[in-house]
Amino acid sequence: MKARDENAYAIQDHYDPDFQVCYGCGARNEKGLHLKSYIEGDRVVAEYLPQAHEMGVPGVAYGGLIASLIDCHGIATGAAHFLAEYPDHPPRCVTASLHVEYRAPTPIDGTPMTLTARVTESSSRKAVVEVQVHSGDTLTAEGRVVAVLYRG
Amino acid sequence: MKARDENAYAIQDHYDPDFQVCYGCGARNEKGLHLKSYIEGDRVVAEYLPQAHEMGVPGVAYGGLIASLIDCHGIATGAAHFLAEYPDHPPRCVTASLHVEYRAPTPIDGTPMTLTARVTESSSRKAVVEVQVHSGDTLTAEGRVVAVLYRG
Repeated sequence: MKARDENAYAIQDHYDPDFQVCYGCGARNEKGLHLKSYIEGDRVVAEYLPQAHEMGVPGVAYGGLIASLIDCHGIATGAAHFLAEYPDHPPRCVTASLHVEYRAPTPIDGTPMTLTARVTESSSRKAVVEVQVHSGDTLTAEGRVVAVLYRG
Repeated sequence: MKARDENAYAIQDHYDPDFQVCYGCGARNEKGLHLKSYIEGDRVVAEYLPQAHEMGVPGVAYGGLIASLIDCHGIATGAAHFLAEYPDHPPRCVTASLHVEYRAPTPIDGTPMTLTARVTESSSRKAVVEVQVHSGDTLTAEGRVVAVLYRG
């Protein structure tokens, strides 16, 4: 996993505390996955290490895990897009639609998944986010999330 | 939840045992969601009761849960489609693509989700499955899964 400064700005950790409860990415969800998404230039990136029980078929991450991570990372990327308009904290977006194309198996072998996202279209309340998932150098999935502002 | 005969045929419980390990739907995954899909006429149906920690925003199921259930249920529906060609057990399919449109919040309030699916297109190794998700009478999500035979 990529080492990060402990002060690095994880988008999900700056949502209003009431919205830090998501199973996929909320720091306050004790049972959740705790995905954290970071702005890096014109991209938003996250890493996740798939766990042994998160399999679909033996040794391969289940499709719903990959969909969940793409969803949460896409929503965070949408929030980052609107950040300038929300000085206190990133706004919470929700998912209007989610599309995932599975390109190759995502192995569960100690290799972290890397999610890289960018906004490709937007309007005043909506951002379309494209997400790529790699395991090492292998592109394993591509996603498209339509993120809509939940409040604001 | 709908009462079922304990002998009802859950598609996932008849996969080859090596494939009953999926986090979303494998009986042999101790930590998983244990979704079970049943053939009812020309449809395949499943129910799932979202749990308190499976939230996205407070009181509402997270998008990744809904995507995961649609994925596993779509894959099971694909397996059911090919069942006649596999006399020993349903074949295991994997997901080529997954699309989810979120229509309304899926509440976490003790109301089970109902997933209803049917195959709309198919070829010798692929089935396109459309899935509807209801919470009570409310349509909360619609999905489309492209299921591809993993073996056979």
